[in-house]
Amino acid sequence: MAPHRYTEAEQMLVALDCIIFGFDQNELKLLAIKRDFEPEKGNWSLMGGFLRRTESLDEAANRILISLTGLKNIYLEQLHAFGEVDRDPVERTVSVAYYALIDIHTHDKELMKAHGASWFSIHDMPDLIFDHNHMVDAALKRLRYKASHQPVGFELLPEKFTLPELQKLYECIYDTELDKRNFRRRMLSMDVLIKTDEKLKKYSKKGAFLYTFDKEKYNEKIENGDSTVFKPILS
Amino acid sequence: MAPHRYTEAEQMLVALDCIIFGFDQNELKLLAIKRDFEPEKGNWSLMGGFLRRTESLDEAANRILISLTGLKNIYLEQLHAFGEVDRDPVERTVSVAYYALIDIHTHDKELMKAHGASWFSIHDMPDLIFDHNHMVDAALKRLRYKASHQPVGFELLPEKFTLPELQKLYECIYDTELDKRNFRRRMLSMDVLIKTDEKLKKYSKKGAFLYTFDKEKYNEKIENGDSTVFKPILS
Repeated sequence: MAPHRYTEAEQMLVALDCIIFGFDQNELKLLAIKRDFEPEKGNWSLMGGFLRRTESLDEAANRILISLTGLKNIYLEQLHAFGEVDRDPVERTVSVAYYALIDIHTHDKELMKAHGASWFSIHDMPDLIFDHNHMVDAALKRLRYKASHQPVGFELLPEKFTLPELQKLYECIYDTELDKRNFRRRMLSMDVLIKTDEKLKKYSKKGAFLYTFDKEKYNEKIENGDSTVFKPILS
Repeated sequence: MAPHRYTEAEQMLVALDCIIFGFDQNELKLLAIKRDFEPEKGNWSLMGGFLRRTESLDEAANRILISLTGLKNIYLEQLHAFGEVDRDPVERTVSVAYYALIDIHTHDKELMKAHGASWFSIHDMPDLIFDHNHMVDAALKRLRYKASHQPVGFELLPEKFTLPELQKLYECIYDTELDKRNFRRRMLSMDVLIKTDEKLKKYSKKGAFLYTFDKEKYNEKIENGDSTVFKPILS
């Protein structure tokens, strides 16, 4: 028999909500779904679900993310547990929020459609249900912070990208314009970008060289204690 | 009636565990309690408890902290939700860990005694139950990180402190020796310490001036966008 400390304790629901960011050429976007059950049926919501007794929090967050995007091995990080008493009007539910960064062009469009999911610019988002707006604010704050200290931004780009695309991404994350020459110099001085032979000619006749992020080299530098390798883009 | 999504979802326990750090002259310490119920009765544990349906996560963390230390208005921050399936062998329990920083000389010693609580040097801690060792590791990592970016260290000191005491605190947090002259210069250049007329003569005949932390001035600088005000002690 379980000790009375356990039997006296109150059971409740634990939910997960995913703040999914994507980058689309010149906009940072958020994935929201149309909720298909009451309360708040038909309103915009983060993608979420309830934790099952047989899965860990991380496993549940991955399950929910895969069910919507079809993507595995996504950048996914726990953000915060939201625990206001009345945050869900139906049942006492603690929600553990995770945020994910995905390359907007790789997810499964059929799955998305089936869930009634849409991408919204973070500057033009609908009101979300419950405390989901707060969750998005907290995730944006974390993303901005992380992007100044760790190379998380690359998760939002295709494998090959141009320096103008990379700059645009950071401009979107920070919601500010960056000086082109300084940005290039800073990025290249980190010595973790590999220049390929290929050029992207979509935006200009001359084209721009495509780069890839050298994750191995980056990890090596970090392991060797090189704390300056990814300096804040803005500081 | 609640929608089936809710009625089908599985209820479980939500716990809170508090990683309480204190600083005692030349050591960073952790508060642990002797668990008084099964399983793991008699073993060392973090101070914790179950979330009640009528309180938020933050309220519950504060309740638990007050019940042990008698202290209100403590620096308390949510660390992470720990959600492995088998982390508690009795019942499926998600635990939300909070870490607290307190001035080791201000807490209620009678309450502590009643809970079988003891301070341990972080270099000489007993094995803790469940995943509590992981929680402490994560909290130490967060404390080290925070202390490089925000003036959280002052929460661990009495209101008035000497520069040698402040230096010792940072040396304990980082587990490394710091150069006295550089440390003084860095700290004073931030312009957020107020020198009092008083001297502490406990450690030397000549004594050392006591300082206080100017929280208002610090907050003002932050609000004015001065991002350099609290530079990492180590970088």
